Amino acid sequence: MTLKLYELQGRDDRRMSPYCWRTRLALAHKGLEAEYVPVQFCEKDKIAFSGQTLVPVLVDGETIVSDSWAIACYLEDTYPDRPSLFGGDVGRAEARFINAWTDRSVHLPLLKLVISDIYSTAAVESDQPYFRESREKRFGARLEDFCDTSEESLAAFRAVLEPLRMTLEAQPYLAGDAPAYADYIVFGTCKFMSLVSPQKLIADDDPIHAWRARMLGLFDGLAASTGAVDAA
Amino acid sequence: MTLKLYELQGRDDRRMSPYCWRTRLALAHKGLEAEYVPVQFCEKDKIAFSGQTLVPVLVDGETIVSDSWAIACYLEDTYPDRPSLFGGDVGRAEARFINAWTDRSVHLPLLKLVISDIYSTAAVESDQPYFRESREKRFGARLEDFCDTSEESLAAFRAVLEPLRMTLEAQPYLAGDAPAYADYIVFGTCKFMSLVSPQKLIADDDPIHAWRARMLGLFDGLAASTGAVDAA
Repeated sequence: MTLKLYELQGRDDRRMSPYCWRTRLALAHKGLEAEYVPVQFCEKDKIAFSGQTLVPVLVDGETIVSDSWAIACYLEDTYPDRPSLFGGDVGRAEARFINAWTDRSVHLPLLKLVISDIYSTAAVESDQPYFRESREKRFGARLEDFCDTSEESLAAFRAVLEPLRMTLEAQPYLAGDAPAYADYIVFGTCKFMSLVSPQKLIADDDPIHAWRARMLGLFDGLAASTGAVDAA
Repeated sequence: MTLKLYELQGRDDRRMSPYCWRTRLALAHKGLEAEYVPVQFCEKDKIAFSGQTLVPVLVDGETIVSDSWAIACYLEDTYPDRPSLFGGDVGRAEARFINAWTDRSVHLPLLKLVISDIYSTAAVESDQPYFRESREKRFGARLEDFCDTSEESLAAFRAVLEPLRMTLEAQPYLAGDAPAYADYIVFGTCKFMSLVSPQKLIADDDPIHAWRARMLGLFDGLAASTGAVDAA
């Protein structure tokens, strides 16, 4: 039975969701083949069967799982004989903190930098009205007013990454000597950055840059791709 | 051979360093007895034997270890048959990120709130000149100008804690179903807060408050004490 992953599709078939990349890399870590089904913002009917409106959605036989964290836990529990995503219960619990840090502390200052890029060049054109309306409602401001690509905004984003930087100065991966789900969480956000924006958000001499370069070599080019190579 | 821990002493014998609390709780978690040696800011001669100037310093027979993270790793590696602080290599690597997050993201906004409290009521009086001079040099501002106990400053501190809050809404401890070193890292900072400042920095309805209350019950009252009960 082939697994099926529904994931966000942007312009030029870029698979641009940070959350969907977490799942892609978790599947690759487990050595699981999957069929990737692209879903645009305005194609939520494609995932209506999941009972909610967000990607990623994983279908594994009769099982339907949505939410990237729930999918990672499902894969770990369902395929325990394959390489572990968490390295045990404590590793899983602490990875949840890294997941929350990325979602709550990193994404907001990052979105301030890239939201206009997403709107104007990364989202498919037919998704633009939905993207504008939903994000302007969420942030309580016009995209053009919420967006801030100033030096101060970039400095604030880079400051939030300080604990990541400090950790990667001390060890090669967030999960230690080899990458695991904690790395895929944060790397998903790095993929998102590079797929939606031409801005140089991580400096070349940043230890995060060197870690990202190591991550790009994973899984026979999958981590370095736009994701479109596997399109259904 | 009794272990010996050198730790920061404040007024009324409060053991107020967040880093020293990490080590205290790590020792308790491992079931290791220790003698606690108080060190005031201006008593650095007491730890000169360690080749550096900061507490905590652990002495275990012939071995001298400074830096709370290095001490935690030393205890885990030296006493592997006692309860694990990290639950494996991935748990250790991810705990290092939580350590960095606490040190780099949490402590600065917290210090802005409490630095005047530390100076005026928590540090021993003979340490006040040293405390003022060293912190004013570090922060490039007079203590009174660096300190900011406004509503905005409190809100900024609480916002930084959002990933902790989100994690503790989903699981009882940072390390999962039972506390481990990740919890001691952050709880050390909670002990510091309560020992140096009367300000209500965590709201009663915050999930962090409920977690802190659970943590206070650990180790037969040790976690709830001022630390002075064990003074050498």
